[in-house]
Amino acid sequence: MGSLQFEHEFGNKPLDSEEFRRQGHLIIDFIADYYKNVEKYPVRSQVEPGYLHKRLPESAPYNPEPIETILQDVEQHIVPGITHWQSPNYFAYFPSSGSTAAFLGEMLSTGFNVVGFNWVSSPAATELENIVTNWLGEMLNLPKSFLFSGNGGGVLQGTTCEAILCTLTAARDQTLRKIGRENIGMLLWATIKSDIEDGIIPLFLCATIGTTGIAAVDPLQPLSEVTRRYGIWVHIDAAYAGSACICPEFRHFLDGIENADSFSFNAHKWFFTNLDCCCLWVKNPSALNQSLSTNPEYLRNKASDSRKVVDYKDWQITLSRRFRALKLWLVLRSHGVGNLRNFLRSHVKIARHFEELVRSDKRFEVVAPRNFSMVCFKVSASSALFKHENDDEKDEKSNEVTKTLLEKINTSGKVCMSHAIVGEMYVIRFAVGASLTEEKHVVGAWKVVQQNLDAILSHRIHIPCEFSMHWYSYWY
Amino acid sequence: MGSLQFEHEFGNKPLDSEEFRRQGHLIIDFIADYYKNVEKYPVRSQVEPGYLHKRLPESAPYNPEPIETILQDVEQHIVPGITHWQSPNYFAYFPSSGSTAAFLGEMLSTGFNVVGFNWVSSPAATELENIVTNWLGEMLNLPKSFLFSGNGGGVLQGTTCEAILCTLTAARDQTLRKIGRENIGMLLWATIKSDIEDGIIPLFLCATIGTTGIAAVDPLQPLSEVTRRYGIWVHIDAAYAGSACICPEFRHFLDGIENADSFSFNAHKWFFTNLDCCCLWVKNPSALNQSLSTNPEYLRNKASDSRKVVDYKDWQITLSRRFRALKLWLVLRSHGVGNLRNFLRSHVKIARHFEELVRSDKRFEVVAPRNFSMVCFKVSASSALFKHENDDEKDEKSNEVTKTLLEKINTSGKVCMSHAIVGEMYVIRFAVGASLTEEKHVVGAWKVVQQNLDAILSHRIHIPCEFSMHWYSYWY
Repeated sequence: MGSLQFEHEFGNKPLDSEEFRRQGHLIIDFIADYYKNVEKYPVRSQVEPGYLHKRLPESAPYNPEPIETILQDVEQHIVPGITHWQSPNYFAYFPSSGSTAAFLGEMLSTGFNVVGFNWVSSPAATELENIVTNWLGEMLNLPKSFLFSGNGGGVLQGTTCEAILCTLTAARDQTLRKIGRENIGMLLWATIKSDIEDGIIPLFLCATIGTTGIAAVDPLQPLSEVTRRYGIWVHIDAAYAGSACICPEFRHFLDGIENADSFSFNAHKWFFTNLDCCCLWVKNPSALNQSLSTNPEYLRNKASDSRKVVDYKDWQITLSRRFRALKLWLVLRSHGVGNLRNFLRSHVKIARHFEELVRSDKRFEVVAPRNFSMVCFKVSASSALFKHENDDEKDEKSNEVTKTLLEKINTSGKVCMSHAIVGEMYVIRFAVGASLTEEKHVVGAWKVVQQNLDAILSHRIHIPCEFSMHWYSYWY
Repeated sequence: MGSLQFEHEFGNKPLDSEEFRRQGHLIIDFIADYYKNVEKYPVRSQVEPGYLHKRLPESAPYNPEPIETILQDVEQHIVPGITHWQSPNYFAYFPSSGSTAAFLGEMLSTGFNVVGFNWVSSPAATELENIVTNWLGEMLNLPKSFLFSGNGGGVLQGTTCEAILCTLTAARDQTLRKIGRENIGMLLWATIKSDIEDGIIPLFLCATIGTTGIAAVDPLQPLSEVTRRYGIWVHIDAAYAGSACICPEFRHFLDGIENADSFSFNAHKWFFTNLDCCCLWVKNPSALNQSLSTNPEYLRNKASDSRKVVDYKDWQITLSRRFRALKLWLVLRSHGVGNLRNFLRSHVKIARHFEELVRSDKRFEVVAPRNFSMVCFKVSASSALFKHENDDEKDEKSNEVTKTLLEKINTSGKVCMSHAIVGEMYVIRFAVGASLTEEKHVVGAWKVVQQNLDAILSHRIHIPCEFSMHWYSYWY
């Protein structure tokens, strides 16, 4: 069965270099046009649950369909169901900051399609991952004990969830090897002492640099003074904010990291690296390996037996792994350390500008210190809007107006933001970091916020009695 | 700070549609050329440990580098360190069968770069995943109880490791909810009875359709008769072989699946879907959700509260998730069910041809039934080659010759295979499934096997005394 016969017999081939070239160019133009036009789409998808089921067939087609037809369907049926995280007007959750460089790296990774579970399965995949995690570790000024050169090391995983699960497992097993029993706990430091008195062994503390709610920063130095005394594994989760620490002026947020055991941040959040890419460094890779290693016979090989190589399968939950290092390598080289710092600084700068805009409108308040590129704000309970309410009512009403305001903003499709609960306050999270965002978008976003509050208030004036329930059910 | 000023100030932008277009076209040609020339590279990388550290700089560059320079480095420094899983002469481990369609899907997913943790974060990501797992479930003729329409459902995860970890956790928690204590075990069915007598509650059985070693198949029907009696969660892991079951003639391997609780296969192995994509179906999604759900306030939204939508974050370990459904959708549509079946059949057919070639050479034996597209063979202990040895020596020597043969084959760079231990036999695994593989490559691979055995044997004739240690240390 030769090549021609194959083609004749089956109609098409799964992988043909010239057809790949033709279709690949088509899709590059498709995605480039998407970026060109991304501001034209409503940022948050406006579809209703079940929309796609109504538009697509019940079953897979028996016969092949041309790529042109499929791309038409992507445009008509998929794009309307996308919330446009790449839009410059996207400020929700945390950024998912893609870049051309990371996209190209992901394409190379997808194209080579190697399964780098151990060194021999594709040496470049392992060694480039060693190299880029070293590069990045140096950029972050991590203590040498986290780098391969200091007997630590870095690994690229999918997400922070994986990184925490892996380090937690390593911490548990390390403690079990020491104490040989299972009366262990994973607890906040304030309870450490009472746990020990109760015979529970605390073993893992996760400190956060840039919490999801309000991008707060745990104080590493005082925490580590306590944990070190009890031999507790400290993981530093800097999922969003870690990238900022490549700038000298932000590096102080990591002071105290020298006492931690592991550190991770998501390059796919605010480091121009398309999803997914969580960078994890550990001081003691053998603790990870002892918990996560698998050595089935079919993976044995000379290089692994020589112990001269890293087998990343022993650093993570999964066996199969993509060649993620390529995209990080392309991001670092395409931009250089200098530009990357400046990109991050520009986001912080325009977030600061947004913060100033919020503060300049007395109806609003900023509810948490802005450490990085995220501003948390709400309609102020103490503003003149609520002057006729008592204190409890003020808090409740300002929460309700803030919640309604957010829903109106997102329903407008002009910008997209998300929320958090801080104490008992409902707050709007405004996270700058989309790769296309510039100052003009932030200024525009603020206008959308103000206009929508104006609209809510004018509506409120027309229904002065029991207004809050009225507009609540109307808008929400 | 306007757009122009930004560009001037920072030298380049992370994401610019026209620069994306230019660089994207460059890389498509780069990868298309790679596929065109992939047969020219040694299949298994020939580099030594540490090769890349010698070639790349110690630190990330401060200034940006042009994509042209980076691509030159990929060609000169990365490609030599790649084991070419996409080569038509790649037969090691299991296939990593990429395709143009899946590549395009991955590009779309990477380009949109949405984080589909719940429905509202990008409705299309969730709904397309519902749809393609339904399509594929129907193609596999899964019982309706595994599909959304039958109150089950499908999810796309990264790897089988994740799928098993998730289902195992669900099984454990389901049992704990029933029995309220922790005296539980995860055991083979033969030990179930004695475990129960010992007060251990067996809770999870993983049956395999196509084991990694020799692609063996567990008999689902008799297994499930036992497990059903004891309420044990049965997961069917068909990581490699599951895809073949879309062909009616292979579907019988799944007979008995109606009694299982969950089923997974890796579309990234032998289903033309680039890494990573593990398809998992469960009968009882709420068991998964109860174990894996997270509901932080910042993810609350109307759609989730309405319970009308699937939030896939509750179906997996990680919160962030890529839009994997796109690539599976493109694979299904670009080829259609008919072609996909024929691609798989063609691999089985040429594997059968390879099996015939092995059987036609008396120096070799096929060591396990060939169920799918993998042939396990070795230099036969009973062949005339070992006629002067006693029985124990025959086994040992045939193992040694087989091991040496494999290393010589892989060192040749012409083809790549891997090994397994079956009982006490060292066997070569020859897995057909790379997307570019045709019959001629398999015929050529067999010639490489024969020529290398010839070379070993001729070498052996020249050093007749203590030969086995001699050639062993020489070749290995």
